[in-house]
Amino acid sequence: MGSKYISTSVIRRLPRYFRFLNSLKQTGMIRISSSELAERMGISASQIRQDLNCFGGFGQQGYGYNIEKLQAEIGKILGVDRGLKTVLIGAGNLGQTLAQSIEFEKRGFNIIGIFDKKEALFGEVLRGLPIRSADDLEDFCKENHVDAAILCIPFKEAAANIDSYVKTCGIRGFWNFSHYNINEKYPEVAVENVHFNDSLMTLCYRVINLDKKD
Amino acid sequence: MGSKYISTSVIRRLPRYFRFLNSLKQTGMIRISSSELAERMGISASQIRQDLNCFGGFGQQGYGYNIEKLQAEIGKILGVDRGLKTVLIGAGNLGQTLAQSIEFEKRGFNIIGIFDKKEALFGEVLRGLPIRSADDLEDFCKENHVDAAILCIPFKEAAANIDSYVKTCGIRGFWNFSHYNINEKYPEVAVENVHFNDSLMTLCYRVINLDKKD
Repeated sequence: MGSKYISTSVIRRLPRYFRFLNSLKQTGMIRISSSELAERMGISASQIRQDLNCFGGFGQQGYGYNIEKLQAEIGKILGVDRGLKTVLIGAGNLGQTLAQSIEFEKRGFNIIGIFDKKEALFGEVLRGLPIRSADDLEDFCKENHVDAAILCIPFKEAAANIDSYVKTCGIRGFWNFSHYNINEKYPEVAVENVHFNDSLMTLCYRVINLDKKD
Repeated sequence: MGSKYISTSVIRRLPRYFRFLNSLKQTGMIRISSSELAERMGISASQIRQDLNCFGGFGQQGYGYNIEKLQAEIGKILGVDRGLKTVLIGAGNLGQTLAQSIEFEKRGFNIIGIFDKKEALFGEVLRGLPIRSADDLEDFCKENHVDAAILCIPFKEAAANIDSYVKTCGIRGFWNFSHYNINEKYPEVAVENVHFNDSLMTLCYRVINLDKKD
């Protein structure tokens, strides 16, 4: 099942399925038809059947999907139980907020170290972990075989340190808030960029063009 | 120019163009060819030419695009100078972090009020604005003709208050961190959802499947 090729657009929809199924599960629902799931998610039922067929037979004609089983299977495909060894780089406002508010361990990540270059932060505790000096990052990664990093640092800092992160630290996955384009230099690592400004500007465009639709 | 129909997928790429052109401008570059821009952005040159043709002739065969002019024009289309009247609802960790770190006024938004239901926060100052009681939100919105809201509140709170936000407050655009599906109930308002978990889970999938590509 895991060995089958799955297209990027299907992969991108998997977390959405996971999220919707999760909220349905919490309402106590047991089964759902592809057409009802489609309506709630705002996509077509045939799209859903096609996507979920990639992973084999969860639906049964006329019975719909078992919500809990389907969610668990999608979670397995996404790797939510993998606990990838992860470091948080940058414990400023944003880094602290993410560390405090996101359930990383339920999404496949295990935060094992937090680093910053600001001396004033060293030793402060976040998520039960002490904030360490960025100078110790390389040694820490080598010792602990770190898989992934959450980059909450400015563009310039990311640009200056990316070689160390990829080559010396061996980090293979980045949740990237720095706006530095990691894949331009290292196309082989996995990067998810979060560009707040892109989504803000899209919103602005859509608000100022709302009236044109009426 | 603004009256022409522009597809959603082009709109979604506009902030990326804006961002790339901005960083090119900062390096002092004056012009760029579509093929060079394409290489930097990781999309095809013909896609770029097609996208930018939607807004009329910025490129000149053989001369490439004038970076500053093109960025300014894209910014105008996106509405980055519009200063939409915006409230921040929820001044917890995330709300505070966004308020302090994002240049809203350069992306089309003007934050004019900050609201929370926690009494302990009332009167604290963020971005030069006092945090007000959520009880005053409706009056504030009616008086000030608020266009947009940044929703940094939990799912349940968003679900409980969405009618007030849309119907009483008249808010027509949401930058939504609450995970509540606003468009299911109000398809006519503009919503940009930020789902941190979706991007985290996609990253996890990609990291655990990196080796399969090798």
